[in-house]
Amino acid sequence: MANFADRLIKEIEKYQNPSSIGLDSDFERLPKFLRKKQVSQAIFLFNKAIIDSTFDIVPAYKIQIAFYEKYKLEGLKAFEKTISYLKDKKKIVIVDAKRGDIDHTAKAYSFSYLSPQGFDADAITLNPYLGRDSILPFLEDAKKYQKGIFILVKTSNPSSKEIQNQKLKNGKEVYRIVAKIVKEVGESTEGKFGYQIVGAVVGATFKKEMKILRKILPKNIFLVPGFQTQGGKAKDVILAFNKDKRGALINNSRGIIFAFENEDLKRKFGEKKFYLAARYSALKMKEELNSVLKKIS
Amino acid sequence: MANFADRLIKEIEKYQNPSSIGLDSDFERLPKFLRKKQVSQAIFLFNKAIIDSTFDIVPAYKIQIAFYEKYKLEGLKAFEKTISYLKDKKKIVIVDAKRGDIDHTAKAYSFSYLSPQGFDADAITLNPYLGRDSILPFLEDAKKYQKGIFILVKTSNPSSKEIQNQKLKNGKEVYRIVAKIVKEVGESTEGKFGYQIVGAVVGATFKKEMKILRKILPKNIFLVPGFQTQGGKAKDVILAFNKDKRGALINNSRGIIFAFENEDLKRKFGEKKFYLAARYSALKMKEELNSVLKKIS
Repeated sequence: MANFADRLIKEIEKYQNPSSIGLDSDFERLPKFLRKKQVSQAIFLFNKAIIDSTFDIVPAYKIQIAFYEKYKLEGLKAFEKTISYLKDKKKIVIVDAKRGDIDHTAKAYSFSYLSPQGFDADAITLNPYLGRDSILPFLEDAKKYQKGIFILVKTSNPSSKEIQNQKLKNGKEVYRIVAKIVKEVGESTEGKFGYQIVGAVVGATFKKEMKILRKILPKNIFLVPGFQTQGGKAKDVILAFNKDKRGALINNSRGIIFAFENEDLKRKFGEKKFYLAARYSALKMKEELNSVLKKIS
Repeated sequence: MANFADRLIKEIEKYQNPSSIGLDSDFERLPKFLRKKQVSQAIFLFNKAIIDSTFDIVPAYKIQIAFYEKYKLEGLKAFEKTISYLKDKKKIVIVDAKRGDIDHTAKAYSFSYLSPQGFDADAITLNPYLGRDSILPFLEDAKKYQKGIFILVKTSNPSSKEIQNQKLKNGKEVYRIVAKIVKEVGESTEGKFGYQIVGAVVGATFKKEMKILRKILPKNIFLVPGFQTQGGKAKDVILAFNKDKRGALINNSRGIIFAFENEDLKRKFGEKKFYLAARYSALKMKEELNSVLKKIS
């Protein structure tokens, strides 16, 4: 296995698609015919159909673990099976867990998500509120197992400003302090494309912050949530990329996996073929992103 | 069921013991004879023995979920069984999960940990980096199900200063902004003892911050980790209490559950009777806290 940043960029370029599909597969929102099944089976079958229908067009999948934890062991069984399935398909798997803890506890989480004896995902999202004590144990495993980490820097939700945009004495905002941590811990982890295995989560909804962060963090890959469902548009996410047209992975969760809820798509494909609505939407997103990427020169 | 703050205070006073035992039950650190068993069984048997040996002296248990997630479904099986067992014993259960997410995702986590259909714990710890979007969904459930939440304000680890102690333009630190959020979201959730169902996690290692926070947040219960193992001493944690001798729950995890590793206690009780070393240490902690509480007037 190679450096995580290299792997991710290589896959993005292979599929000409800098996007990931977010498997926020809440049982309650699955097609009715699937909800007749047992929770674990329903969620896994849903994910499998989405994956089978999109793995030839997207390089990576992001799994929001909350929707699996919601159903306790049943849900987590589906979580585990989904990761295995994605790995069989040679896809890059990012677990969106936003963990943040220290010391032995951080090591335990890291073992769980990044180690080969654990769920063995390719990357995990982390919350920086506890400082680098909560980052370094994961980074150590990321180096050891050729994995990656994405640190929350500026999130896409309205109240993210409450802490992240507080202005410090020196005139800079809290999110810039976090960016500095990302920069420092990422040092010397570059792969051959020049990107580091420490990435940043930067919401698509705040243009100003995106611009600033892209400048401060030229070597870090941005995981950008909030495309479409949270109001982020293709023309906005262009700011997440560097001049080399690299450096960002744009995620869309509900806009793809629950595309079958859209009236037009429901008419076109039918609820039973929800996975075709997902493919349709994933292809549309790919097109949109590529047409925007063309404008980078 | 009554208001969470009332329940917790009532139990603390029933046992004359403002402390909780942290079940950070990492399989790797269990007594050797238990590690011969299958992971899920070993962890649960360990916890059960600790609980059986201490439930008549402590009001609450804190479960650090990372040590269960570490062993995937096997570990989480033990997590679920441990919570059930504690609830059978009428103990208060705090899940230390430090979750922090928004919107549907926060609702999913909240459903998992606080709802009766989920793990049904009494309280959960939360990370505030995403602002109150990441708090309110849990608070809604806490109100609905008579549960509580504890928001990380100032954590006990050295690098907590990197973000939490950044000074803002107005001269105040980031952790005070979080304290303000705690204060605001906790409003009107007081029980009959005057305490709110929104608590704060405040490490025992930083005296200055503890003093400030105790002043700003008179109605919020402090969950105080870092006793002993992280250097917090009984005389330091006195600052976590109000004049009414209430308002704090002091947690000790490894200092109690792994007390059998201590050479003196190992000689006294033997590794097979690890639970007696735990009881011994829990009683000692209770005594220490009470002797310190006497000094509050």
